[in-house]
Amino acid sequence: MSVRAGIIVTGTEVLSGQIADQNGPWVAARLLELGIDVAHVTICGDRPADMLSQLRFLTDERVDLIVTTGGLGPTADDLTVAIVAEYCGRPLHDDPALADAIAAIIRNWRGYLPSAELPVALAAAVAKQAKVPDGATPIPPTGTAPGVALPPRDEIPTILILPGPPHELQKMWPTALTTGELSRVLAQSDDIIHESLRAYGLSEPDLAETLRRAEHELPGYHRLELTTCMRGGELEIDARLPRFAASDYAALKSLLLHEHSTKVFSTDGRTLDDLLADSFAGRTIATAESCTGGMIAARLTDRAGSSAYTLGGIVSYANEVKIGVLGVDAALIGDLGAVSEPVAAAMADGARRVTGADIAVSTSGIAGPGGAVPGKPVGTVCFGLAIDGRQTTTCTRQFPGDRTLVRTLATTFALHLVLDALTR
Amino acid sequence: MSVRAGIIVTGTEVLSGQIADQNGPWVAARLLELGIDVAHVTICGDRPADMLSQLRFLTDERVDLIVTTGGLGPTADDLTVAIVAEYCGRPLHDDPALADAIAAIIRNWRGYLPSAELPVALAAAVAKQAKVPDGATPIPPTGTAPGVALPPRDEIPTILILPGPPHELQKMWPTALTTGELSRVLAQSDDIIHESLRAYGLSEPDLAETLRRAEHELPGYHRLELTTCMRGGELEIDARLPRFAASDYAALKSLLLHEHSTKVFSTDGRTLDDLLADSFAGRTIATAESCTGGMIAARLTDRAGSSAYTLGGIVSYANEVKIGVLGVDAALIGDLGAVSEPVAAAMADGARRVTGADIAVSTSGIAGPGGAVPGKPVGTVCFGLAIDGRQTTTCTRQFPGDRTLVRTLATTFALHLVLDALTR
Repeated sequence: MSVRAGIIVTGTEVLSGQIADQNGPWVAARLLELGIDVAHVTICGDRPADMLSQLRFLTDERVDLIVTTGGLGPTADDLTVAIVAEYCGRPLHDDPALADAIAAIIRNWRGYLPSAELPVALAAAVAKQAKVPDGATPIPPTGTAPGVALPPRDEIPTILILPGPPHELQKMWPTALTTGELSRVLAQSDDIIHESLRAYGLSEPDLAETLRRAEHELPGYHRLELTTCMRGGELEIDARLPRFAASDYAALKSLLLHEHSTKVFSTDGRTLDDLLADSFAGRTIATAESCTGGMIAARLTDRAGSSAYTLGGIVSYANEVKIGVLGVDAALIGDLGAVSEPVAAAMADGARRVTGADIAVSTSGIAGPGGAVPGKPVGTVCFGLAIDGRQTTTCTRQFPGDRTLVRTLATTFALHLVLDALTR
Repeated sequence: MSVRAGIIVTGTEVLSGQIADQNGPWVAARLLELGIDVAHVTICGDRPADMLSQLRFLTDERVDLIVTTGGLGPTADDLTVAIVAEYCGRPLHDDPALADAIAAIIRNWRGYLPSAELPVALAAAVAKQAKVPDGATPIPPTGTAPGVALPPRDEIPTILILPGPPHELQKMWPTALTTGELSRVLAQSDDIIHESLRAYGLSEPDLAETLRRAEHELPGYHRLELTTCMRGGELEIDARLPRFAASDYAALKSLLLHEHSTKVFSTDGRTLDDLLADSFAGRTIATAESCTGGMIAARLTDRAGSSAYTLGGIVSYANEVKIGVLGVDAALIGDLGAVSEPVAAAMADGARRVTGADIAVSTSGIAGPGGAVPGKPVGTVCFGLAIDGRQTTTCTRQFPGDRTLVRTLATTFALHLVLDALTR
């Protein structure tokens, strides 16, 4: 049997677009790993009526599990527990043990003695956060807010209430899965496999043509639920399938590899960053970044363990830094402009020289909105790649979009350059 | 009259958590600026039944406008136009002028001559993307996919269909607003004001206490719809109010400034990054980053025009780079460890020296998950701040959360250090 879930993300700051939600995607990914199908993610503000509508919508859609995130804080606009309790017809009661646990956390944070009376503001915050719906299971706080798991009742599915701060939510997740409520949902979930394949430099129309062929030629094609997504210049093809259809997916994979072999760079779910991390084999890398302004170094060092291969880099945003730190010839910049392949080459060579890295990659480009010059429109980026024992190479690419997109596409391109050079 | 909208974000890759959606927040923010209240954002995969459910849900919620994003591509899983057309009972027709416009864009991209026959795959993609529901207004493509605006019909509200790639969507927005369908919705919208106030270092319980006081002391408090959000160590208080309640908001702002004056850093909507950009007054900055690995430099250079004050920086992730490029004394690192205030100070001084910047900020810390040593748990970050003509200062902070959060909080803290030093 297939188990379906819905996720309600709360928070006016998310609804109004001031921040991008991290929790919906994170919870969705975890549920999918557990074989639970996510049907809907809904976002609502801190208004009781809108949240009740979304609870009713997901109930009407007959999902087996609703996960809510956020709205557990101490301020008056944090209403999730009260609204869910009302929706399920479960009055709230005070949980003294939970109140003690929350008070202990706050005392510890603030450096109060265990015996000290809490100030009024904090005592009120504790009392609000220690209310639990009747018949529900509280989940110990990982910040100050406890989570809650509610069993199904009549038409209403199992509901899991989680806190909004992503690190609190993520820390609470394993414990939430061990509650009786969640265990019963998980026991019903099915054997679904997820596969993915990633290509760089492949266009969506070309992929669409191959998929139309697959639809005609592969008898089991209809068993695969496929979605494709273009992002950062990478085209990702995701498949969701019952385990018995594994050979149908294998046939599709063969066809895609046959048609687009040079462009497919991952068939086992590993990302560019995963593959890159495995490609260094003891060699070290440094960056010399102008238009990407540190984004390549930040992305390399985003991984735990990246110190095994990342030495660092130079953000040479200004020409003075290109000249003074990386040793680029000022005359070269004067003659050709900073956005030129010879300068990109000199930057990469300079980064290797000053850091001692085996590999260096460089960017120099026009991220926009200003800065375009004749022959070099916004989106022009020159790259340099210096590798110990090889001739330094350069190339120039033209990226579409606004400043942020140009910088993001250039970062991804630079990392593909390195991966290609290290693995092909 | 208040106009309410709902946003449907489509894409299995968003629903399954593989990517964080940018379009929902962006569209929500634009609608709010236009005085339109966003009631719900819903995310669905590329399954017709789930999308139809969400259209029905928003119709039942009596929103005046539905905006959909994504699902306009050439692959078979891109179904938005067909589903919305079915939902509204408007058959699709071919639009030859639109087909010509799309074909011209593709010819231009691929370098085909205007007279050349397109390959089968591309011709199929063009034909699919040039279908328009009867009675609807197509919006010219900004990538290859056109948008569509559909007038209301019976209970169904006005629907605006936009493409998924954020730069295409954002580029299409101004044109979408000029369609007759959207103009009629906008004409009904109200005079609502948004205000926001940002604090750094203020806790949610302390804010909650002040807000409880405000509720008792300020007669017009109930006219303000307030939401609070803690992110990256910053507490943001947002207010939505009718224009006639402006003096009620002013009273609340006075109270908050009175109670938390040293912690409130913005009362006019400007972010840390906005304020920082305005604080340099001709001075230049460079970074020396270890645990933040380039994130501070990337954030500084994220703004157009940042070359007026950002020279660049050194990502000295490895000790060799701290020593070799920034000139940190190797013995200092040997004696005290790289995560120490004297090393952070030497890094900041080194960054000023090698780049010639007036100001340099440095980070050296333990982002985790490994690397903790006795007395320096994961989350420990030392900061250095060197400013021309002043004594270099240092401090150490302990941040909660995982590697990504520690790096993000440290980046925000470093920028607050600079802002404080330049403005107080």
